[in-house]
This record gives sequence, structure tokens and C-alpha cells, in this order.
Amino acid sequence: MLLRMSTLLLRTLREEPADAEVPSHRLLMRAGFIRRAAPGGHTWLPLGKLVLDRVTAVVRDEMAAAGGQEVSFPALLPREPFDLSGRWTEYGDDIFTLRDRRGADHLLAPTHEEMFTLLVQDMTGSYRDFPLLLFQIQTKFRDEARPRGGLLRGREFLMKDAYSFDLDDDGLIATYARMRAAYQRVFQRLGLAHTIVSAVSGAMGGSASEEFLATAEVGEDTFVGCPGCGYAANTEAVVTPVPPAPPVPAPALAVHDTPDTPTIAALVELANRRRLEGRDDWTAADTLKNVVVTVHRPGHEDEVVAIGVPGDREVDLTRVAAALAPATVTLFDDFDSRPDLVKGYIGPQGLGIRYLADPRVAPGTAWLTGANRAGRHATGVVAGRDFTPDATIEAADVRAGDPCPACTGGTLTIRRGIEIGHIFQLGRRYTDIFGVEVLGADGRPVRPTMGCYGIGLSRAVAAIAEQHHDERGLIWPAAIAPADVHIVAAGRDGQVEAALSLGATMARAGVRVLVDDRPNVSAGVKFTDAELIGIPRSVVVGRRLPEGYAELRDRHSGERREVPLVDIAGVITGTLG
Amino acid sequence: MLLRMSTLLLRTLREEPADAEVPSHRLLMRAGFIRRAAPGGHTWLPLGKLVLDRVTAVVRDEMAAAGGQEVSFPALLPREPFDLSGRWTEYGDDIFTLRDRRGADHLLAPTHEEMFTLLVQDMTGSYRDFPLLLFQIQTKFRDEARPRGGLLRGREFLMKDAYSFDLDDDGLIATYARMRAAYQRVFQRLGLAHTIVSAVSGAMGGSASEEFLATAEVGEDTFVGCPGCGYAANTEAVVTPVPPAPPVPAPALAVHDTPDTPTIAALVELANRRRLEGRDDWTAADTLKNVVVTVHRPGHEDEVVAIGVPGDREVDLTRVAAALAPATVTLFDDFDSRPDLVKGYIGPQGLGIRYLADPRVAPGTAWLTGANRAGRHATGVVAGRDFTPDATIEAADVRAGDPCPACTGGTLTIRRGIEIGHIFQLGRRYTDIFGVEVLGADGRPVRPTMGCYGIGLSRAVAAIAEQHHDERGLIWPAAIAPADVHIVAAGRDGQVEAALSLGATMARAGVRVLVDDRPNVSAGVKFTDAELIGIPRSVVVGRRLPEGYAELRDRHSGERREVPLVDIAGVITGTLG
Repeated sequence: MLLRMSTLLLRTLREEPADAEVPSHRLLMRAGFIRRAAPGGHTWLPLGKLVLDRVTAVVRDEMAAAGGQEVSFPALLPREPFDLSGRWTEYGDDIFTLRDRRGADHLLAPTHEEMFTLLVQDMTGSYRDFPLLLFQIQTKFRDEARPRGGLLRGREFLMKDAYSFDLDDDGLIATYARMRAAYQRVFQRLGLAHTIVSAVSGAMGGSASEEFLATAEVGEDTFVGCPGCGYAANTEAVVTPVPPAPPVPAPALAVHDTPDTPTIAALVELANRRRLEGRDDWTAADTLKNVVVTVHRPGHEDEVVAIGVPGDREVDLTRVAAALAPATVTLFDDFDSRPDLVKGYIGPQGLGIRYLADPRVAPGTAWLTGANRAGRHATGVVAGRDFTPDATIEAADVRAGDPCPACTGGTLTIRRGIEIGHIFQLGRRYTDIFGVEVLGADGRPVRPTMGCYGIGLSRAVAAIAEQHHDERGLIWPAAIAPADVHIVAAGRDGQVEAALSLGATMARAGVRVLVDDRPNVSAGVKFTDAELIGIPRSVVVGRRLPEGYAELRDRHSGERREVPLVDIAGVITGTLG
Repeated sequence: MLLRMSTLLLRTLREEPADAEVPSHRLLMRAGFIRRAAPGGHTWLPLGKLVLDRVTAVVRDEMAAAGGQEVSFPALLPREPFDLSGRWTEYGDDIFTLRDRRGADHLLAPTHEEMFTLLVQDMTGSYRDFPLLLFQIQTKFRDEARPRGGLLRGREFLMKDAYSFDLDDDGLIATYARMRAAYQRVFQRLGLAHTIVSAVSGAMGGSASEEFLATAEVGEDTFVGCPGCGYAANTEAVVTPVPPAPPVPAPALAVHDTPDTPTIAALVELANRRRLEGRDDWTAADTLKNVVVTVHRPGHEDEVVAIGVPGDREVDLTRVAAALAPATVTLFDDFDSRPDLVKGYIGPQGLGIRYLADPRVAPGTAWLTGANRAGRHATGVVAGRDFTPDATIEAADVRAGDPCPACTGGTLTIRRGIEIGHIFQLGRRYTDIFGVEVLGADGRPVRPTMGCYGIGLSRAVAAIAEQHHDERGLIWPAAIAPADVHIVAAGRDGQVEAALSLGATMARAGVRVLVDDRPNVSAGVKFTDAELIGIPRSVVVGRRLPEGYAELRDRHSGERREVPLVDIAGVITGTLG
């Protein structure tokens, strides 16, 4: 491959693009890898397409090595199978749907569990046909409420989705482990530092599930780790240890006049000033904060519920939504319409709506909380005595320093990451729905069990850019750089010709070469562009050309050295080979 | 590559699939290359995906060789650019449209003229940035009224679309010629016998346009050829020579009682029997047939118009629609609502609706035609004297033996083909719409001129299957076969092991190998499957294994010969190399 910048569709930008929020988006735009084309949709320009293709090739290679067979399904599918699985409703506004000219409902499928299940049902009959591991690489569409971060969260993106079918749970566990290892190899080859975290599975259903998060400050996913035991989990998946029951029974419930205390801080201040229950050591942790939310369950009417967490915590709506998936959750704010909900003075006792409590609101715990009348709070409100939550859910935010749920004495750290992969043990959710059965070795019918495995390919490109850049531009890992070497012709007599000749020699040796042969562009601009584009090695054909020397530069280390022109190809192919 | 049929997702079918109408669809389904997944949508199974990938690689290779740069646009796009170009309305029901969660209109773009134009406007500024040739390989969606023929006409398909930008007409003509040559190389490499025909450009707009038609009986496109001069054209593009004006003026218009003559045959019979105008040599060619149609113009109200052709011809609605594109046309049949249109007795004289005439209805020609009253016809109805068509359009069917429009004395033959490629000289339609201007070499603004160039990749697979099969199955050209060699282990002691060992040796030498190592499958079934799957060469490891021999079979010629096992790899790689 020999690309010439004089003809390449490329326009680097010196200025920050106005609508780019994160480094990967800014740099991929500035270096001419992508261009915005639609809300949440980007065009891959030639350099970007080369990187995307290399990322795709790595994934395809590892999927084949793991025994995967590549297929390709339509993206536009009729509604029926998704009605059967319930996902048509569950995904709600998050998917794009349309009606065809005959009035039939279709969707742009977010993933293909239903279709793979139906295909396997159609094409297998016996235990001899298993195990099966199938994958496809496909453009996916999702109607994101808030596309952001360029390629990080778009409405159209490239994804590899794979589905495994095993005859029994041991088979699924073995396949899952094989795919987990394949994913580790993929991300290692892509140069992506990542953490594998436990995850809840959301609308996909199923049991065991892990996410591969590329560590990045701009990541949308918050995850916790325990340096002591190695535990790692998505915050949605963190399980809060239930506190032991208190040794002493709490005093009886008592209602107090607490005017002007709609906030926890004001309430604590008053409680100490008034010495409620004779105490002056009240803290926010002694209070019970009750937050009213609206739960939107696809296909059902909205429901207003209250969520209780200790007053020193916030309700984490992402964790609540994960606990209630596929429902989504928003803060309730129409208190005028509900005089029974006294804002700032809500308590779980005698409340007329469903009440969901954090695990810390355990049976026997006593709380200072609202009395459901304006300007009134109650002390000694005991869980299990004065009120009983309708359910316990993970509702409070997770904080650095919280106890590790997996070991004794460990505490959690918190980091951010970009979800680049997700693997699930789906189990028999879909084979149950479609009644898939094959003949077992013993002559009895067997229902296969499934796994599913996704990698966001376009998102991976962004994640790599997040992890591999500096203030001057991108620094691609060699395995996925758009070219192996960037030859810069400084521009004077004969330098362009020499650069092109050198490039042609290397291209014949199988090296992927980008030559900056642009006329009327200064050497300084070319150097700046080379650093912005970020090909790992560059060769400057410049002022020492008459002596037979060129300069070899390493984008990562910044190292520069003069090398005889006749040796350059050997040095590059040697280091590449 | 070493594929083992024991684990491959493959189920060949002995019986004809019920819903497959054409050989390629039947055989691709039976041989396990594709599977139906949705109305007008198919899943590529592993063997089919391999073929599609090889076809794609050939196209990508030739596009790069022609100077094309690969990019990738979103498929889902906002309405606005397509409103500006008029294509949102023009395509009407043929495209899929949807509303996103914010209520904004989007479409799944059938092609990307608007977006490429906007990209080039965005990324260029000077004549130095030209010429540009850009392409993408993308899944396309069209809401086909009648999906048919499996991959031949689906609602979701893979396409390569390319767009060229030149500064002047000479540049466009040169680029067009280069792409035309590249297309010929592509189809030659794909083993597709094809004809290049002149075409009208339909809804795409623009001037010069040619189609590449793969000759096939099941093709939807009818095209004509002149063996004398080499002229070839889509029937929609055939230009009818205008007959010379008649030497003698026609008698005056006369109306006759012609009861019970709603058909041309009945009218001719009556005219001869009654000796109208004193003649008894009336033929259908002397009559003027007037067919009423409804013209559907996107964004406009439907219009009822009459179309006149000589009575010995039929109105070809495909040709009429091409002439009126982007309008579509259907036969009008609601005569009850229009008492002014007297079915069977319509004539152009004094007709209250627009009248479009075939070129044969030239000024001075005289006709026997309806008198617009029940049971009445008129003789001596002269074009230009008694009526004047509102327009002349190509309306009549084209027939074998018709005079060639390109030479003197030649006559046309008619064949059918599958449109596998289409190239257009678009001109400045889109650069005008978006006001694209760049700085010319002389300092003045220049408006670039465009070409666009499409290849249906999934359709090409079907076309190859149409041209390369026999009654036993597919016969892939070597360049795009799913494997280079198909090794069949007949099944007895050691044969499977020997076949796998031979396959591994060849795979290491870079040969793409499919091994039929299925246990519990008879040699006969394996041979039948091998012929159905159609890999050009197969090796049977069978009864002469103990003597060190295997049988080499050629799927195309049927030739079989015994070859020492130790020589097989050499023979195969030698012939491949």
C-alpha cells in the first residue's frame, strides 16, 4: 500500500472542532479520520476507514481462531420475532422502527439473539451439530437519546456480535471462558488497556455477564475495583453488604415539629439543636432520604414510586434503572398533582405508593425521616416494625472507600471506562421462547443454552485514540495504524521524488506506506500533520538527502536518528518483520 | 483456510425450496450459502459469506487500482439534504423512512450523491484537490414493492457506490472511461459474461449512462442489440426512428359508425369489411391505439393521461415510466368515473386530457382511431392537423427485428440480463444544488462535475450463480469460490485422517480448503453435496488410499483422474499458483 497525501482526501484542522467534547473525537476529526455527517453519525474518511478495517480484521481473526463462523443477517427485520421475545417493547424508543409500504412494522435490530436462535433452530437437529459459535460484523443502529463523544456513543456504529449454542451448562461455561480469553487477546492486540468487570445484563436477560472496559477518563461507565482481592464490577453490579441487625431495639416512633427542614442538612442541624431522642450526635447517615421517581415500564403505565437511601448517600438513577431493567426511571417533580406526597417531608411509614429501599435500610434499622406532613419528621422509624419496603434494590451511589463486597476489609476504588466488549451467559431465555429442541445423544430432546458476545468496533477505534494520544496528536499502536510508516518529503529539489521512490520500494516489500508528497506545503506543516495523524514511525527525507541520509522518527518515544537512505527500507521492514 | 464440514454451519437441501423462483436462488439455498430471514432479506451463511467477501475484495481491489479512495458514510441520514435534492419525494415509497425519538425524519439512503457532494464541498477548496474518486461498500435498503429472485432483488443488499468529482467535462469523461474499464475488469475477474448497454438514468438525473447487464434468462432487464453495428441498449433507452412524412396528404377526417369494435382486431375486421376510405388492406398498424394511464408524480396529484401507439404495438409501461421518471405509471381502469373517456373508442382529437404519443405518431401520419363516442371511430385522423400530441415519448414496446437506431439496415435482437453495474455521468446536478465551488487554476470559481458508479455486490453473487451452474449444482469460478479445493473423505478407515492431513498441508501452502470430514455421512451423499456446493476442484480420498492415490475431480469439465497422494498438494498449488 502506498498512499500519497497529495491526492488523499484529507484536510487536517488546526483548530478544535466546535462540537467535539472528548479527546478522541477532537483528534480523529482534526487528523482527518472522521467527519460528522448526521446527528450521532460520522463518515469514515480514508485514513479512518483503514484503521477501522484493521481493528475489524483483528476481531475477525480472533473470532475465527476461537472457532467462530462468520455469517451476516439482515439488519432490517420484521417485528414478529422481537414481539415474541418482548424486546420490541423493552427497547422502546432506543431502537429505530419503521413501517414498510405495506404497513408492516420493522426494526433496525440492535442485536440478533432472536434471529440466531431461529437460524439454529432451522439448521440443526441433533446433538452432533453442537457446539456452535456464530458471529457477524454489522452496522447497528440505535436511537440514542443523547449521542455523544463522536464514535463513543453514536446512532450508527459497527459491531461484532457473536452467539454461542451449547447443549449444556458446562458447555456454555467453557465457550464463555474461551470467548473471554479471545476478547483479552483482541484487546491486547488493539493496544487497549482494559478491566473486566462484573455487569448486570440489562434488557438482554440472562445470568453471568462481564464487561470489558477500556480505562479512560471520558468513559461513560463507572466501575469499582478492590486493590486487595482484585474484585471489579460495573457500579450497577456492585452488591451492597447488608449491615448486621442493631443490638438494641430502637425507641418508639415519635413525630416532631420540624419546620423549614426540607433538606437533610437542615434536618440534621435541627435534630441536634433540639436534641431529638436526647441526642446531639445526629448525622446525615441517621436520616432516611426518600426520593420519588417515575418508573417507565415499556408496555405499561408509568408508576410513581419512592426510593429510600441513607441520607448521606444519593440515589443513583443508573443503578436504580439497572435494578428495574428493562424499565427506565426519571425523577418525579409534579408534586402539585400529588398532595399525598409532601416534598421534603416524605417517610416510608404509611406512604400510599410503592417503596423500594437500599439494602442498608435493613430490618431493625431505625431512621429519622419525614412524617408525610409539611414541617414534620419522625424519629425511631424502624424498618420491619414501622414500615416494610416493597422491595430491596441497589439504589444508593457507590463511593470510593466503600467496603468491598467480595472480601473482608477491602475497600473500593472508582474509575471510569469505555465499554468496548460485553459477554453474557444468556442461558435458555431465547431457546425457551422459540422452543428450540434437538435430539440428544441419549435420544431425548435437548434445549441448547446460549451465550452472546459483543464488541463495538467503531467505539474501539475511539477508545484506542483515547488511550494513545498526546497534546500533539494521535499515536497509533503499530498493529492498527493506518500505515506502517509515514514518509515526509521536506519539499526541496528531488526530495519528493526520493520520498516516493523510497515509498515504492517499501510498498513492494509489503510495508503500508503514507507519503507526504504535497507540493506547496511547508516542511513545518508536514511535521505537525505527521504528529497529528500519529503513524508510529516516520521518515523525513530532507536536507541530508544529498549525503544519502534520512531521519527516522519514533512518534511514541520522540526519538530521532539519521539513517542512510539505503538502509531505511531494511530498518523499517526489519522492525516490522 | 481449512474448513471442516463436520462443524460447518451447513445443511444442504435435496428438495427445491418452495419460495425460490430462479436457479440462483434455488441453488444458493439448497447448497447452504444463504437462508431466507425476512421479506426480501437473506442471511449469508458461512459458505455464502466467503463468496460475498471474495466478490467484495475484487471490487475493492479494482476501485483502488482506478484511484478510488474508500470511505464509509452513515446509512441512516436526516431528511434535509434529500429534500434539497428532491430525492426524498422522488423516491417516494421506494425508500425506507423513519422518525427518530425527537420526531425528525430520516431515511435509509438508497445512494449517497448528496452526502458525497457535501463532503467534497466541506473538504476541498482548490483545483489542486481534484480530481477525486471516492467509494464506499455499504448495506443498502430499498422498500421494494415486489422483492424477488432471492438476492436478485431484495430489500437489503450490499452495494459499492462510487462518486467522481472533476473540474471539467473532459475530466469527467476521462474518469468515466477509466471506471468503465475498471468495471469490465471487475466483471471479467468475477467470471460474469455481460453486455454494456446505453441506459436512461431514471431518478438519478444526469446525461450519459450505461448499464452492465449479466446475460441471464431470469434477468429483469430487457435489452436490445444490433449484431450489425454492435449497438446495445436497455429497452428503456431505445430511440425509435421517426418515420418520414407521408408523401400524399391524407383524406379529411371522417367519423364512422363502428359498433362493437372496442378491440383493434374487431376494428380492423370492420374497416376492411366496410371498405372504409375505399380500402380493404387495413391492418393493425394503420390504427392508433390510445391507452389511458395514471401518472403518479411524487409530491403532485395523480394525473390521468392518454398514450398513443400504433395498434400493432403494445404500450410498454416500463418504457413510459422511464420517459416520465421520476413519475411512475399505472393503467387507468376507473372509466365509470370519467364518462368523457369512452373506453375502446378513444381518439386523440378533441380529447380533454394530456396526450403523449409514440415517435411513430409523427406529424402528417394518418390514423384510424376512436371518435370519443361509443361505437364510433374516425379515419383520416392526422397528427399535426387533427390533433397535436402534448409530447412525444418512447411508449411502444421494442421487438426483435425492429430497425436499429444506430445504423442503417440493422435490426435489433432482444435478450434479458441482470443489472450488475451502472455508471452515470451525473454532471453538475448535485454540485449546482449545493452550490459547490472551488478556486480554479485561473483564480476564478469552478463548479465540479460528478459521475456515479454502482455495483450490486450481493446481486453479483446471484448473477454468477445464474451463469455458472448445471443441473447438479453450482460451479464457481475459481477466483470467487468459497474454497480452492474440496477434499472428500469417502469415510472408511483412515480416510478422514488422511483427508484432514492433506487439507492441513495445503492450507499451510495458502490454499483455501474445505474438507468433508463428516462422520456418518455416506460417500454418495458427500459427492452429491460437493457437486451442489460447486468448488471447482475436488479431491476424493477413497478406496485407493492404501495404494497412495486420490482422485482429482474437475467440477466444470467433469474430468477425473487418479493422482498420487504425495503429488496432490503440488498439483493443486501448481494449478492455482
